[in-house]
Amino acid sequence: MKLRKIGEDRLLAQLLPKLSRNSSVVLGPGDDCAVVRYPRAGNFELLKTDCIVEGIHFNATSHPESVGWKAMARPLSDFAAMSGVPRFALVSLIIPAERELDWTKKLYRGLEKAARTFGVVIAGGETSNIKGPAVISVSLTGFVERNRWVSRDGGKAQDELLVTGRLGRSFHGRHLKFTPRIAEARWLTEKFSIHAMMDLSDGLGADLPRLACASEVGFEVDEDAVPRHRGCSLRQALSDGEDYELLFAVSPAVTAELQKRWRKRWPLELTRIGHLTKARSSPKNWPPGYVHFK
Amino acid sequence: MKLRKIGEDRLLAQLLPKLSRNSSVVLGPGDDCAVVRYPRAGNFELLKTDCIVEGIHFNATSHPESVGWKAMARPLSDFAAMSGVPRFALVSLIIPAERELDWTKKLYRGLEKAARTFGVVIAGGETSNIKGPAVISVSLTGFVERNRWVSRDGGKAQDELLVTGRLGRSFHGRHLKFTPRIAEARWLTEKFSIHAMMDLSDGLGADLPRLACASEVGFEVDEDAVPRHRGCSLRQALSDGEDYELLFAVSPAVTAELQKRWRKRWPLELTRIGHLTKARSSPKNWPPGYVHFK
Repeated sequence: MKLRKIGEDRLLAQLLPKLSRNSSVVLGPGDDCAVVRYPRAGNFELLKTDCIVEGIHFNATSHPESVGWKAMARPLSDFAAMSGVPRFALVSLIIPAERELDWTKKLYRGLEKAARTFGVVIAGGETSNIKGPAVISVSLTGFVERNRWVSRDGGKAQDELLVTGRLGRSFHGRHLKFTPRIAEARWLTEKFSIHAMMDLSDGLGADLPRLACASEVGFEVDEDAVPRHRGCSLRQALSDGEDYELLFAVSPAVTAELQKRWRKRWPLELTRIGHLTKARSSPKNWPPGYVHFK
Repeated sequence: MKLRKIGEDRLLAQLLPKLSRNSSVVLGPGDDCAVVRYPRAGNFELLKTDCIVEGIHFNATSHPESVGWKAMARPLSDFAAMSGVPRFALVSLIIPAERELDWTKKLYRGLEKAARTFGVVIAGGETSNIKGPAVISVSLTGFVERNRWVSRDGGKAQDELLVTGRLGRSFHGRHLKFTPRIAEARWLTEKFSIHAMMDLSDGLGADLPRLACASEVGFEVDEDAVPRHRGCSLRQALSDGEDYELLFAVSPAVTAELQKRWRKRWPLELTRIGHLTKARSSPKNWPPGYVHFK
């Protein structure tokens, strides 16, 4: 069977159960970052790798500095999703030999700019030739306090669902320039008990069902409430992907207070879009998000 | 200027000086692994990323399980070069959608087999489509005791140079099936003071000058002593690359004792091939190793 027919979720479901585990792994594959025990009182280590591929995540005409920014910002967004503090990055550049040195230097400038902005040090890396499209792979390590990490699986029926920023049409340039919501996520877990959280990389349409599935609940969404960028249809807001905003679930008892304090602290919008339900169903006509390999 | 004209060493020399640093980074880019401070008494954390690319490091006809083994074994070999203990791996699979699922499952079996063999847990990863050759990227974290890590830059004039195993013609299948010398490296640093060490990935011809350069010394090699696989010329032993054996420098005062105890402990050959010199020159006609992008 070809990968094209399978999609990422089903591919991972085939590959991951065969992995060995040990007690040092707090949270393995399937969430935004891996969480591993590190013997420093009160902290877990976070590990995340991500890659962007020319022709898939950027084009030959994309500005290389923005491409570098995106390559670093994507795994940073996964750190935000776990309320983690990133510390070190490893960068692999897999670039055809015909590419201009100047392109590569601008790419690296973007990588470094994103790293610096979020307090990350590029500690090492690797380069390789490829007879094909360029690939940039970034791995991050960092930490999160044991009482502050947030996975996807802690959502409860009746929890309110909130989304930062606006969604849709990211491919009109935003996907190369987005801001990982690390500061916002750290603020959230400092002030409130966040039951479940993830970053929206494949679109709310694909990602919300993942959060609900991991939490073993269903969801309802007030479609009119979904915050959209100007000119976006609901379907675009749900399905375009690459929003890199935070989606999280909190108790209805704290939602009003959270929204009030958020408005005082952050200029970024925060919108209640629906809630989790006991019945494990999704709304009718819920659109698919972007699925890899398809 | 095209990357093709530059080569990896010169490319990195252009990119790396611009990186920011902080005091948590003990050893940044340029050695086998990055070494970062982690607040556990007595230990540093090691970080390494590596990738293999179809058409460069393996072919469409290579057995996928062996390809997976190689993808994991390469960064493990870098851990050996620092005398490190690997713990966690992140795996990125960048694979064209037309590839068979069966190929990907066999690839993963090889990755997992190598990880398990060396006590490593695959803690997470990522998959992506590519319109081109497959790329497998593996990042490793682990640790090394503060008094046991070995970089490339501690070699001293008169140090003896030793090499494990035999060199040359790795591309006749060995490059897909090699054994990272982690156990041997751990034994070496437990018993002896190893001044400088690295793993031979680009060939002794390219790698020995890197060790000498990092240590600010020159080197002399007894060409007849270079251990070669059956049927290999000296030039092949120096230039083919992908040997993944250890090259290290020790004081001449301990070499005889080290060789004697090694023979009792390990079936693997260990050969004295030359020594480091005060004069920072390399032998005449020293051949180049494999250089990326060329």
